[in-house]
Amino acid sequence: MHDTRKVNVMEDIYGENEHIAVHTREALTERDAFCVNVMGAPGVGKTSCLKALFACLKERRPYVVEGDIESDLDARHLRELGIPAIQLNTFGACHLDAPLVRNGVQNIQFEGPSMLFIENIGNLVCPAEFSIGEHVKLLISSVTEGSDKPYKYPLAFEKADLILVNKVDLKPYLDFDEDFFMKGLRALNPEAPVFFVSARDGSGFAEAAAWLEHKAAHMREEAYPHHHHHHHD
Amino acid sequence: MHDTRKVNVMEDIYGENEHIAVHTREALTERDAFCVNVMGAPGVGKTSCLKALFACLKERRPYVVEGDIESDLDARHLRELGIPAIQLNTFGACHLDAPLVRNGVQNIQFEGPSMLFIENIGNLVCPAEFSIGEHVKLLISSVTEGSDKPYKYPLAFEKADLILVNKVDLKPYLDFDEDFFMKGLRALNPEAPVFFVSARDGSGFAEAAAWLEHKAAHMREEAYPHHHHHHHD
Repeated sequence: MHDTRKVNVMEDIYGENEHIAVHTREALTERDAFCVNVMGAPGVGKTSCLKALFACLKERRPYVVEGDIESDLDARHLRELGIPAIQLNTFGACHLDAPLVRNGVQNIQFEGPSMLFIENIGNLVCPAEFSIGEHVKLLISSVTEGSDKPYKYPLAFEKADLILVNKVDLKPYLDFDEDFFMKGLRALNPEAPVFFVSARDGSGFAEAAAWLEHKAAHMREEAYPHHHHHHHD
Repeated sequence: MHDTRKVNVMEDIYGENEHIAVHTREALTERDAFCVNVMGAPGVGKTSCLKALFACLKERRPYVVEGDIESDLDARHLRELGIPAIQLNTFGACHLDAPLVRNGVQNIQFEGPSMLFIENIGNLVCPAEFSIGEHVKLLISSVTEGSDKPYKYPLAFEKADLILVNKVDLKPYLDFDEDFFMKGLRALNPEAPVFFVSARDGSGFAEAAAWLEHKAAHMREEAYPHHHHHHHD
């Protein structure tokens, strides 16, 4: 960001991106599809966590948009499990953006109350800068990444609405400092719930799924917060 | 990269970046400082691997430039160990670029034959697109990331000159498929040496350090390859 030409162009792009993201979110709300932007570093277990979450959803049917640079391994794997999954490829770009996601989601045929998980590119930096139409941002971290990640990649931890810390089954073999991790995280984000989970044995996901379904049940109020209050204005 | 304004500006920026990177590399070659661009995802153990490598260097003194978004945990830690370390902060940007690195390295006082390790931002996508003045790119992956990473983040694996796969001490607790990993990697990069290492116990680093020192001993020939052949032209 040392280049003023780049800064000017990027400001335009951020503004257009935000505008499209708001429209996508409104359209998904109308279609009763609660949208989760799934962020996290490469190899943190995003797809594995999604599968464990799906097993715990009680009120909504899961749909997936898989963001990858150029592969489609995860989308094919999910389809084999019977989960509707759309592939979006960025062909080099380091994050999903709202125009690409809008084109991907507008043709999904949601059947009843739905939860749409959009798995972003594995990257702990850039995806946090771009809204894509989500109701909430889900950040997946992992005990194998080390306990200093909130200090080093603050924006992703600051912007998350829900945080999963995966691979707790490996904790006995690591020196993950949970107090240091939580201290750094809470300095950035005092409120987001944090669940320690293991995609390998499924532990911790029931609580996370319940939190998401509770949020989803209230998405219309949150999308139009002033509808409840306009006669008090 | 959907926006033509952005594409045009980015082409200019890539060209200027490459130009500055070439100058930085030439200046470092003159100063007998072999420069290693250290790339890898967050939490893969970049700083830990560097410490293990330093213990195995026989011919050159290590220097470090730590790239971080806004923290300085690793640079302070290395200085406490007596290793000369400079901090570069990108304040939000997702990769180091050549102008920032030029400013950081030009005042380093190298003492004798040196090896300068520049630890890039933890990110498996963007750093691979930008040269910063390095003689070689060192990519650090990890068995905890899973064996599909070359398929999902191809550019970093394609551009690497040397690859370390860290945390092999955790392999018994994982289902890392080494054949699948190597097949994906070799489709992109047939030649780069790959060393399986553990920063925890130091295994595998002696070979990697020897490879780097061999490369460093020949950096002048590689920097000016036509000097050996100009009377044949």
